[in-house]
Amino acid sequence: MRIDIPFAAGLLRANDKFEILCHAAPDGDTVGCGFALCRVLQQMGKQAFVTVDDVIPACFDYLFPAVEKQSFAPEFIIAVDVATLDMLGSETHVAKYRGRIDLCIDHHASNTDYAKYTLLETEPEASAAAETLLQVFYAMGALVDPMTADCIYTGIATDTGCFRYTNTTSRTFRIAADLLDKGARLELINKRNFDTRTKTYSALEALALATLNTYFDGKCAMLDITQEMYRLSGSDESEAHPLKALPRQVEGALVGVTVKEEKDGRFRASVRTNSPVDACNICKRFGGGGHKRASGCDLPGDTIDEAKKNILESIRIELEKL
Amino acid sequence: MRIDIPFAAGLLRANDKFEILCHAAPDGDTVGCGFALCRVLQQMGKQAFVTVDDVIPACFDYLFPAVEKQSFAPEFIIAVDVATLDMLGSETHVAKYRGRIDLCIDHHASNTDYAKYTLLETEPEASAAAETLLQVFYAMGALVDPMTADCIYTGIATDTGCFRYTNTTSRTFRIAADLLDKGARLELINKRNFDTRTKTYSALEALALATLNTYFDGKCAMLDITQEMYRLSGSDESEAHPLKALPRQVEGALVGVTVKEEKDGRFRASVRTNSPVDACNICKRFGGGGHKRASGCDLPGDTIDEAKKNILESIRIELEKL
Repeated sequence: MRIDIPFAAGLLRANDKFEILCHAAPDGDTVGCGFALCRVLQQMGKQAFVTVDDVIPACFDYLFPAVEKQSFAPEFIIAVDVATLDMLGSETHVAKYRGRIDLCIDHHASNTDYAKYTLLETEPEASAAAETLLQVFYAMGALVDPMTADCIYTGIATDTGCFRYTNTTSRTFRIAADLLDKGARLELINKRNFDTRTKTYSALEALALATLNTYFDGKCAMLDITQEMYRLSGSDESEAHPLKALPRQVEGALVGVTVKEEKDGRFRASVRTNSPVDACNICKRFGGGGHKRASGCDLPGDTIDEAKKNILESIRIELEKL
Repeated sequence: MRIDIPFAAGLLRANDKFEILCHAAPDGDTVGCGFALCRVLQQMGKQAFVTVDDVIPACFDYLFPAVEKQSFAPEFIIAVDVATLDMLGSETHVAKYRGRIDLCIDHHASNTDYAKYTLLETEPEASAAAETLLQVFYAMGALVDPMTADCIYTGIATDTGCFRYTNTTSRTFRIAADLLDKGARLELINKRNFDTRTKTYSALEALALATLNTYFDGKCAMLDITQEMYRLSGSDESEAHPLKALPRQVEGALVGVTVKEEKDGRFRASVRTNSPVDACNICKRFGGGGHKRASGCDLPGDTIDEAKKNILESIRIELEKL
């Protein structure tokens, strides 16, 4: 059942012994919401704890002091920023909570209404679940202290790519202003989430960028990442992720491709597209897939040049449709 | 003479035939201010044009329609986002305006008061000259239409690194909210300024990143930009700006420095710092200045290695204060 903000505030006031569920592969929004909600409930003298079926990335460790460790049998279960039950984690974990979630506070239009009560702002869509959660705190008359402000700010800043994505609205900016006034630590939060690069990542980026090339009159931009680059830069595959965003940013590119050499010598493509090119179509020809704007696939080929030739042929077919 | 916002508004209302000067190596703030001010004055039925002693980077071309081309003998000269006369451009250009600038609207604490009247908000420092300029528009009762909102938003977004830098205050966020409500095109502005990279910029970044080095136990990170890199990458100085943000992002770095070789063979440092290191102190030793977290200076030295040795010595002094 869909509910509004005052109703959600009423549920939180009326209940006790809360368990708060974040989604697996936790991001700043689910972690920020989980910790903010737990803190506010604990400050009201209620019992609350947060459950995450995954490791919380170290970049969020400044939020850990927000909550006090408590252990008890929960009576009211809340999921935050969780669009589908599957997002909670492993199959066992999901099975444990199926049919047992009382309240979901989310911002995904695709929410499957798995909870008894679901709070979801749609007009306009909230930039982050944290944006909606803050409205609930206001409706409860809850204290939003500096640490709670940090949690909510983290959710909003990370889900908007630091106010860059189109989900940023004027309300988002006004909330950010209020959170700064309440003591959110902008410098710390931004440094941890948007403004840290390792020396090894920088070296890897330099090597990969040197391979950047364009094809089809600049409509496709491609860069390579090889095992040799990891060796030379002292980095490894875990640092390669941000590079995948770079080729699509090249001026005029509709398709951005990163071709990665894997440890076993095989090649894998990561494809990002601008509207209207379908990244999924490009990757499906090699048995891969994903989303319209971001997909991936393994590539046939014994050398990186062969692998690139293959993905370029698939891209040519998609570009010819335009 | 330092003036306040109502006084600046009065000067703009009382005068006509304006020439508006932007600084050379124009960034989003000086261009945004120049075009916003010119547009507002033209909309008031006054004559105004913008002068830039340099090429305006193409990433700002969505602002070009903001102003109408006008040609006349100016009677009132305004510099926007220009901390020192030298920033205006070539020696001939600077000489032409020396002692002739009536009003300066700026946000650099290091402003040298070269203008007859200087408007500078210091408590707190405005994130961008555009933030102060908007207050002047409000004081004038001027119309801020969608195009003017684009100009001001561009100035603020670029000078705050899209609300990432510590010059972002709650007022900055509230202004951003108001500008969105007035029609600023967040998606377009962000795409052009934060989500587009040219092939030549990517090549330049690769070459520059390859020089990234750290000093003082990693507390300082530095990269070089040389004329040779521009030649090899097919880029030029106008594309170098985003590189200045990179060294400070290196994990553990308190000071990030970019040492640029200029066309005339001289060297220039751009210094960005994390709290508590004072970038302005580092640059003042060489006659430069700017902000606490972002400053610049020319460097003595016949080779880039000599220039780097000089700035490193100044950084050493600042780091020893910690």
